[in-house]
Amino acid sequence: MKEFSLKIRVYYEDTDAEGVVYYGNYFKFIERGRTEMFRKIGLNQSQMGREDVYFVVHSLSSNFISSAKLDDEIEVRTIISELDLTSLTFKQNIIFGDRKIFNATVKIVCVKKENGVFKPIKIPTFITEKV
Amino acid sequence: MKEFSLKIRVYYEDTDAEGVVYYGNYFKFIERGRTEMFRKIGLNQSQMGREDVYFVVHSLSSNFISSAKLDDEIEVRTIISELDLTSLTFKQNIIFGDRKIFNATVKIVCVKKENGVFKPIKIPTFITEKV
Amino acid sequence: MKEFSLKIRVYYEDTDAEGVVYYGNYFKFIERGRTEMFRKIGLNQSQMGREDVYFVVHSLSSNFISSAKLDDEIEVRTIISELDLTSLTFKQNIIFGDRKIFNATVKIVCVKKENGVFKPIKIPTFITEKV
Amino acid sequence: MKEFSLKIRVYYEDTDAEGVVYYGNYFKFIERGRTEMFRKIGLNQSQMGREDVYFVVHSLSSNFISSAKLDDEIEVRTIISELDLTSLTFKQNIIFGDRKIFNATVKIVCVKKENGVFKPIKIPTFITEKV
Repeated sequence: MKEFSLKIRVYYEDTDAEGVVYYGNYFKFIERGRTEMFRKIGLNQSQMGREDVYFVVHSLSSNFISSAKLDDEIEVRTIISELDLTSLTFKQNIIFGDRKIFNATVKIVCVKKENGVFKPIKIPTFITEKV
Repeated sequence: MKEFSLKIRVYYEDTDAEGVVYYGNYFKFIERGRTEMFRKIGLNQSQMGREDVYFVVHSLSSNFISSAKLDDEIEVRTIISELDLTSLTFKQNIIFGDRKIFNATVKIVCVKKENGVFKPIKIPTFITEKV
Repeated sequence: MKEFSLKIRVYYEDTDAEGVVYYGNYFKFIERGRTEMFRKIGLNQSQMGREDVYFVVHSLSSNFISSAKLDDEIEVRTIISELDLTSLTFKQNIIFGDRKIFNATVKIVCVKKENGVFKPIKIPTFITEKV
Repeated sequence: MKEFSLKIRVYYEDTDAEGVVYYGNYFKFIERGRTEMFRKIGLNQSQMGREDVYFVVHSLSSNFISSAKLDDEIEVRTIISELDLTSLTFKQNIIFGDRKIFNATVKIVCVKKENGVFKPIKIPTFITEKV
């Protein structure tokens, strides 16, 4: 799938006492981006969960270039950069106005639950044929 | 059980762009108070969950009297004010220095999960004999 | 202003280990509802902040009737029920499908900052003439 | 300063519908670790803010090795690995039992506010002589 765009409004809940978005909340924003990209191509996480197929974040790296503030409408741009047997890698940027304020590379792994512990599995074909 | 006290430090994550604790986060603080009170009397929520016994919040009312700020060490004081067949009611105050900054009355209901939906149940005696 | 409606999607960030929305997060949802209602009538909170006019929550009461889950699209319905010299009161409902799952009455007070402390002020007419 | 350890309890607020800690919340935990390390050596962020000295996260990379769950008591271990003219780099691990479940490298930059925008500054000596 090509780049997917999601608009997000910054609310008080997202900001902190420095007056800008709390650094940990950018990870909420990009997770919404990945979730809505999945939904767009017909992949619903709660439905996948009922079939014991989950994705968990394996690793990430990110740069905080500038800050979003209360009431800003930011845009999360998401693209899948790599597809392996058990994992997917996303490149994600957050844009405000004409500036990139944040970027991240996020690798997620497909898992099932076994006695309450996540075990990596091959990504099912109903997913790979869509991404 | 008599009043239970829990000290909590305010971090950046708890504050918002108004420079004080975000109003919704006081409900996190008082839930920590209820959880630690339970732990103190030998009630562990994850263990209760494995036996399909949960508590969910039924209703609450609260007053935001003053504001906590970054780095403040606040104190959550919790007391059980009512015990019914299926519910518990807590009175909770948050103190900073010598001032009450927040209070709440919170009623929680004992439930089990039935096809993914919570159903009220009688509070098991292993709980009522402890609270 | 008449009732204002805001659609909100439930993400992983909103849920907890009971499998449903964490009780404290409903207060984020209804704050988004109040913020977007304000924006709709031309009131922008970050702009108000630059003029040293803020609203802080004074008190609230709420009922948790049923639970929202991952991927649910819920609707926050907001109406102003009372306007006083220094405060506004909102009635807010959260709807999923054809069911009310949450309601709240929230009183907010208009303040300015004085030496880092909030002081109640008369709601400015540029606000009262719009709500 | 040598390695600093902080114990943290996992509450419902930290978990999500997968039954484990939400990935974005590990960044809250490690920020508490950095904050308490600073406090230990006499650096108080709210006091620094009053002198217009802030730290903002510049970049980070992290690995999610295993999951923390409700009621787990985890330990955040923090060490400063690099000190530059304007930045500090931390190595941070989260341990549960005898297992490392998360690690991160976090670079923070010292800034002041200029017209609401953060500008990098040399780390003041009252800080460098302590870390």
